[in-house]
Amino acid sequence: GVCNKGQCFLSYVRKENGASDLIITPATTFKEKPDPTGLVFGTVFTDNMLTIQWSLASGWEKPYIKPLENLSLHPASSALHYAIELFEGMKAYRGVDGKIRLFRPTLNMERMARSARRTTLPTFDQNELLECIRKLVEVEQEWVPYSTSASLYIRPTLIGTEPSLGVKKPTKALLYVILSPVGAYFASGSFNPISLWADPKYVRAWKGGTGDCKLGGNYGSAIYAQQEALEFGCQQVLWLYGDDHQITEVGTMNLFLYWINEDGENELATPPLDGIILPGVTRQSILDLALNWGEFKVSERYITMSDLTSALEENRVKEMFGAGTACIVCPISKILYKGKHLHIPTMENGPELTTRFLNKLSDIQVRCFLFYNQIK
Amino acid sequence: GVCNKGQCFLSYVRKENGASDLIITPATTFKEKPDPTGLVFGTVFTDNMLTIQWSLASGWEKPYIKPLENLSLHPASSALHYAIELFEGMKAYRGVDGKIRLFRPTLNMERMARSARRTTLPTFDQNELLECIRKLVEVEQEWVPYSTSASLYIRPTLIGTEPSLGVKKPTKALLYVILSPVGAYFASGSFNPISLWADPKYVRAWKGGTGDCKLGGNYGSAIYAQQEALEFGCQQVLWLYGDDHQITEVGTMNLFLYWINEDGENELATPPLDGIILPGVTRQSILDLALNWGEFKVSERYITMSDLTSALEENRVKEMFGAGTACIVCPISKILYKGKHLHIPTMENGPELTTRFLNKLSDIQVRCFLFYNQIK
Repeated sequence: GVCNKGQCFLSYVRKENGASDLIITPATTFKEKPDPTGLVFGTVFTDNMLTIQWSLASGWEKPYIKPLENLSLHPASSALHYAIELFEGMKAYRGVDGKIRLFRPTLNMERMARSARRTTLPTFDQNELLECIRKLVEVEQEWVPYSTSASLYIRPTLIGTEPSLGVKKPTKALLYVILSPVGAYFASGSFNPISLWADPKYVRAWKGGTGDCKLGGNYGSAIYAQQEALEFGCQQVLWLYGDDHQITEVGTMNLFLYWINEDGENELATPPLDGIILPGVTRQSILDLALNWGEFKVSERYITMSDLTSALEENRVKEMFGAGTACIVCPISKILYKGKHLHIPTMENGPELTTRFLNKLSDIQVRCFLFYNQIK
Repeated sequence: GVCNKGQCFLSYVRKENGASDLIITPATTFKEKPDPTGLVFGTVFTDNMLTIQWSLASGWEKPYIKPLENLSLHPASSALHYAIELFEGMKAYRGVDGKIRLFRPTLNMERMARSARRTTLPTFDQNELLECIRKLVEVEQEWVPYSTSASLYIRPTLIGTEPSLGVKKPTKALLYVILSPVGAYFASGSFNPISLWADPKYVRAWKGGTGDCKLGGNYGSAIYAQQEALEFGCQQVLWLYGDDHQITEVGTMNLFLYWINEDGENELATPPLDGIILPGVTRQSILDLALNWGEFKVSERYITMSDLTSALEENRVKEMFGAGTACIVCPISKILYKGKHLHIPTMENGPELTTRFLNKLSDIQVRCFLFYNQIK
């Protein structure tokens, strides 16, 4: 269409940079690579990082792969005052064939773009960014653990760097990616089930909010409740919603219930993506696998605490687990709710289905197969 | 009590620093001070800043007043990923007597401490921090505009600097304060009323969330709605809550309605502090003043859109205004709701009460009086 705004002229003359413009000046001194067993999540970082500056006037600048260093940020940067910030979490795995793979990374790129729109940060060409990330992992390939259970965690981050205290859409931003080797979540062959604290007094996300995007603000507000869960002797928070105490998520994971439902059917259920649930890549992969198997009913549906307690009383609950990038699946054995400890018989039931998802997804991550994305 | 944890020993030997430990190394080159008229809010900063580092192991380090400079932050800092961050907003005024005053700063310190607890950041001695801020303003006193309508905006900020991707209570933090001269919000004697967009599809805050604290995450999530308000030709968002569309806040301000209520009484009403409302210092001051005057009913109560539309139909609405540190009071003239433009007759009614609050609060801010806090 016709346009007579300066903005349009700028975007006409602007050269949008991509992966082919990468300037790679890697580190020349190298940190010692840690033994992946016993690593604390997200505390050790690799030698290099990816950075891409953006401004409204110039668009995306050339991407850089350069030694990991502190960011130099104006103290008024909008990320530091108004949480104009988002992140992603994904992993690179070294397969049985020695090749390195990312697991369904295009889903992370799509979610990242959606988060960017929601927080008024700039969007980007998802393929170009993925290619930059692929290149960063290639530079850091020796940091991908030589193990099929450990992996290299990838943390893309996008922050507003507008040096102004006005609460507004930023005209400057920084996209960066850091990498952190992580060990196996569970020691080989042994699941450690977790206990949950369910109290409606803290609410993670709400309709009309940002719970379905991976924005910083969803996480900082959750830590207080997590502290209280620990005080009650529980490991994580079971987030409830609404007057009927719907169960929504677990800590920073999606939630699955495998049970005999009210109609007597074997059902794998997880809350629907109605705006308050993070659309997890592991969540989607579990649904995809289960639908593909076709062995039981698979539902995105509401589950209330009263649905759950009735099912427990009637011995209809088989397994309950969290699902996320960090652990893949995480069995749940206890819920503290209204002063009562509810025992969830996940471990007594194998956990058969939980284990099957863990093995299947781990297998996909280290072999050429469905969802496969070879990076090297 | 008896304690055998290493933690206690640490806190025993720890020396907590305070204002008397300030290390002041002010800038030796000076920026030109701008004409306060026509300044864009929060874009110009003074020559110096206050910084105080905190760690779990050492507590609060010595405070520094030093030249304003970029922060050097680890790219995994928890403020940048999980919005573990909070801020405050207050102003220093140059009075008619040439003295500089802060307006009820202890209320800001109290709120800041409450925000710190909610976001699991360290708390602090409120008097010591206020004394450090007083000292910073003293160092920067020439930046306080020589005007009774312009002022020096003070932005205390506290961020998590934990260099780790675990979602947890940070063990490192940085408190800093930057200053920005700001002009008069309204040109002398003339109010510019604002128009509001009221749509329940975006919700600012919710019960069990963090809407009553000044956390970054409350602001970043609001900008998208603000963009949409602009697209509908409105200037700010009127935040609704619940199925009955309660009116809660306006943009980043508290909300007041001066009307003849359902019982035929003259009433000044603002939503109660039930967890979703920011306890504004200007809000509290308006309530304090109005109660002191004793001329009409003063209520912290719920007001729904249907209460408001009924009152408009029956000509019971006198004035409606936002209240906050930036503008003191800001009259509202229009609300776009369910596709209809509601005319609010604030300007036709003077606005008598809105103007009275503006004049009274401005007067207090530049003269020795109630709420007075002389800093120099």
